[in-house]
Amino acid sequence: MTYHPTTFRGLTWCDSLDRMANGETTPREYLESCLEIIAAREPVVQALTAIDEDGSRARADASTRRWKDGRALSAIDGMPIGIKDLLETATMPTEMGCAAFRGNFPRRDNAAVRALRAAGAIILAKTVTAELGGSHPGPTTNPHDASRSPGGSSSGSAAAVAAGMMPTAIGTQVAGSIIRPAAYCGNVAIKPSKGAINRGERQATSMSVHGVHANGLEDMWRVAIEIAKRAGGDPGHAGLSGPDHLPEPVRPNRLVVLHGAGWDALDPGTRSAFDAVCAGLKDIGVEMTGAGNDPRVDELEQLLVDSMETCNLITGWENHWLYRNLVDQDPDSVSPRAREVLARAEALTPADYRDALQRRAAAQQAGAAVLADADAIVMLSCPGPAHVWQGDRPGEPLTERPTGDPVFNAPSSYLFAPAVTMPLLAVDGLPVGVQVMGPPESDARVTALARWIMGNLSPISI
Amino acid sequence: MTYHPTTFRGLTWCDSLDRMANGETTPREYLESCLEIIAAREPVVQALTAIDEDGSRARADASTRRWKDGRALSAIDGMPIGIKDLLETATMPTEMGCAAFRGNFPRRDNAAVRALRAAGAIILAKTVTAELGGSHPGPTTNPHDASRSPGGSSSGSAAAVAAGMMPTAIGTQVAGSIIRPAAYCGNVAIKPSKGAINRGERQATSMSVHGVHANGLEDMWRVAIEIAKRAGGDPGHAGLSGPDHLPEPVRPNRLVVLHGAGWDALDPGTRSAFDAVCAGLKDIGVEMTGAGNDPRVDELEQLLVDSMETCNLITGWENHWLYRNLVDQDPDSVSPRAREVLARAEALTPADYRDALQRRAAAQQAGAAVLADADAIVMLSCPGPAHVWQGDRPGEPLTERPTGDPVFNAPSSYLFAPAVTMPLLAVDGLPVGVQVMGPPESDARVTALARWIMGNLSPISI
Repeated sequence: MTYHPTTFRGLTWCDSLDRMANGETTPREYLESCLEIIAAREPVVQALTAIDEDGSRARADASTRRWKDGRALSAIDGMPIGIKDLLETATMPTEMGCAAFRGNFPRRDNAAVRALRAAGAIILAKTVTAELGGSHPGPTTNPHDASRSPGGSSSGSAAAVAAGMMPTAIGTQVAGSIIRPAAYCGNVAIKPSKGAINRGERQATSMSVHGVHANGLEDMWRVAIEIAKRAGGDPGHAGLSGPDHLPEPVRPNRLVVLHGAGWDALDPGTRSAFDAVCAGLKDIGVEMTGAGNDPRVDELEQLLVDSMETCNLITGWENHWLYRNLVDQDPDSVSPRAREVLARAEALTPADYRDALQRRAAAQQAGAAVLADADAIVMLSCPGPAHVWQGDRPGEPLTERPTGDPVFNAPSSYLFAPAVTMPLLAVDGLPVGVQVMGPPESDARVTALARWIMGNLSPISI
Repeated sequence: MTYHPTTFRGLTWCDSLDRMANGETTPREYLESCLEIIAAREPVVQALTAIDEDGSRARADASTRRWKDGRALSAIDGMPIGIKDLLETATMPTEMGCAAFRGNFPRRDNAAVRALRAAGAIILAKTVTAELGGSHPGPTTNPHDASRSPGGSSSGSAAAVAAGMMPTAIGTQVAGSIIRPAAYCGNVAIKPSKGAINRGERQATSMSVHGVHANGLEDMWRVAIEIAKRAGGDPGHAGLSGPDHLPEPVRPNRLVVLHGAGWDALDPGTRSAFDAVCAGLKDIGVEMTGAGNDPRVDELEQLLVDSMETCNLITGWENHWLYRNLVDQDPDSVSPRAREVLARAEALTPADYRDALQRRAAAQQAGAAVLADADAIVMLSCPGPAHVWQGDRPGEPLTERPTGDPVFNAPSSYLFAPAVTMPLLAVDGLPVGVQVMGPPESDARVTALARWIMGNLSPISI
C-alpha cells in the first residue's frame, strides 16, 4: 500500500454535513465506523492511550437527536475527535506519555476540550504523545509503514487521523510536534500563531500551541475556529479569528522559499520533490523568491540556522522546574532522555535564557521584514519521509531523535508564525509535507493560501 | 498601640548581615526569635496555614554552618520567609484558601520557591490567601488592630511581616493583592512588572505577578533579585534585573500624581494626608504634575476609570476554566463568592475579552505617554486605613469587598507597571501606603525612587 497524495483518501467529517442534516447518516453511524477502523488498525498503529466507547456512543446518540431536530450545536456537532494525551480531559486519564503520570486522572477539561464539547464534538480518545511532549517516543507506528516512526510528539494524533480512526485530532507543538508528525503521516495540520488557541492549564512554555490534525482543510479549520469561538486565545491574546467555514482560497502573488538548516542533509529525492513544488508554483504564475534573490531572505536563513538549538534551550529552561520536581520525587518517573534534557537545562542561567530570547526576537524581526512584501513562506515540513524506528537497541546509546528531526519545524515555532502543512509529496512511497507560514495572527489567511495551493498544484510523487 | 510610620519598627533581615558574618548572631537564633513571635501573635493574627518548624530549624543550622565557614549562599542565606499559600511548596501543603484544595500536598516547589531555597532562604511557613487569590477572605486579622482586615488576597504575607513573624514573605497580585494588604499593614512591598519574576506553575492569568512583602526596601529588593537571578522571569520574559544590593537612591525630577477612580470616595483624612505627601515632595524640589496640568494625565485618569472592572473581567475570564472544573467536581468546593465570579465570567464571550484587552492596551499607551518625560507616578496604595471586618453576617448578603477595594491597585496591574508601596502615612492610627509606579521593566529604578522618597520625606500622621 504505497502512499500517493493524489489517491490517498483520508476520513473527513465536513463532507458528511449535508447527509447529517438530511438524515441520510447520523453521528452514531459515523462513530461506529470509526470504532470499526480503530478495532482493525489500532493493534498495529497503537495511536491511542484511552478510548471512551460508551461515553462516546451516548454523546453520538445525543448529537444524532440534535441533528434530527435541526438543533446541531455547530458544524462539528457529533464529530469524533482525539485529544493528545498532554491535555486534561474530564472523561479519560491524562498520562502525558510519562511514568510519573501513570494513572493520572484529574477529571478536568482543558479549555479547548471544554470548547469542543460545547460545540458538540465527541471526545473519543486520548492519543499517544512522546513523553511530556518531548522526544522520548511512545509505541505508535506510522500508518503508512509500521516499521517507521509517525513522528512526534503528537504521534498518536497524526497517526490516528492518517489511519482513519477519527477525522481530526488535537496536537500540540513547541518546536516541531504538530507539523512534523502530520507531514510524516500525510495529514493536513495547522500550528496556529502563538496564543491563537487557549492552552488552558498548559501555559508553561513560551512557544507551545494547540493545533489540529485532519485529512482536509475544511475539517482542520472548522475545529480550530469552533474552539477559538468558545475558548478564545491564551491569556493576554486576542485569539484565532476568521469565518466559521474554511476561508476562501487566496492566490499568492509572491512566496518566499526557505530552505532552512536541514536542507543540506536532505536525501536527493526530497530535495528534488520540493524543488518541483517551487517550480510548479512558478509555472502557475506565483513569483518565487529565496536566498540569493533577496538579502532579507539570506538574513532570515542565517538567523534561523540555530533556531532548533535555541528552541530547545528556551523550552528546556521553561520546563525544567516541572522536570526537576518529578525527578526529585522519583528519578525513575521520567526517561533517561528527559533526565538529559533536565541536566542541560540546569546548566543554564537566566542570562543564557535572556540571550536566547534576544536571538528569537532578532529572527522574528527578520521574519517580519521578509513577509513585508510577500504573501507567505513555503518550506518543507519534515526532512524527507519518516525514518525506520523500531525502538532503542538495548545496550546501545539512546537514539538522539527517535521521532525525527524538528529542524524544519523550529522556524515557525521560533517566529510565532501560523503554519499549515499540506500533504503535497510522496517520496519513496511515503508522505512528505510542505508548509506555508505567515506572519503571527494571519492564521485564516495562511489557511486560505494553503487552500489555493492545494487546489491548484498537483501533488508530486518521486 | 497606635501605629505611626516613624516609630513603627518592623523585623528586618539585612540589618543583621554584619552580625551574621562575624558570628555575633546566627540564622538559628534569628529563626528562634521568629518562632517566639509567631507563638505570641499567631493566635490573634492568624496569618499562617502551615509552619515547618523542624525543617526550618535543620535548615537554619545548616545556614549557620555556612555563615560560620564564610560560605553563605547569598545575602538571604538563613532568612526565614513566608510563602503565600497559592504557590506550591515541596515541604508544606498548598491549599489556596479553597475547600477544593484542602489537604492538597503536591510536594513540588514553585520556581520562585526553589530559587529561594537555592539562595539559602528558609521556607518557614505558608501564609493565608483569600480563596484562590480572589476576594473570599481567610481568618487573618490586621496586626495593628485585630478588628480590621489585613487586606487581601496576600493577607497572611502582609500580616505576618507586619507582626514581625518573619522579615519577608512572598505575595501575588492580579488586581490589588500585594500592594493593598501591604499598605493596610504598613509593609513595604514590590509588585514587579508583568513577567519580572517566574511564576512557575501559576501562569494562567495575564496580569498576575509574584512580589515581596518586607519591613524595609533592602530586604524587599534582596529577596526579589535573589529569586530572579536563579529563576528568571516568566516564559518569554527577560526577568527582573538590577544590582545584588538595594539600588542607590534616585532623586525624581518630575512625578505624576494620579488620583484614580477611588479618590472621590476617600475619607477626608486620607485625602489630606496624600495631599500633604505631594506638597512635601514639592517642598523638597520635585516637580509635581497631575490631571488639570497635563492633558496626557487627564487622558490616563480617564482610561483608568474602569480599570478595576476591566481587570476583574479579564481575570474572571482567564480563571473561569479552573473555577468551572472545580464546581463541576463539587459545587461546594468553592465559596458562594467564587461561584458568583464564575457566573459572571461564563456570561462573557471571547469578543468581550478581546475588547477588554484593547481597553487595557489603550491605557498602557496612555501610561507610556505620561511617563515619557516623568520619573514615575505616585498614588495612594489603598483607600484609607483598613476597614473593620469580622466576617460575613449570617443571613445577610455577602459583603462585596471583604478584603478591601482594589481601586487604587488595578492601575499598576493594568499597566503591567512595577509598583513599590511605602508606609508613609498613618490615618486614625492605622497604616496607609503610598505607591510609586514606573514603566514596565523599570523595577530597579522604581525601587531607587522609593528609596529616595523614603529617605527624604517625613512620614505623615493624621
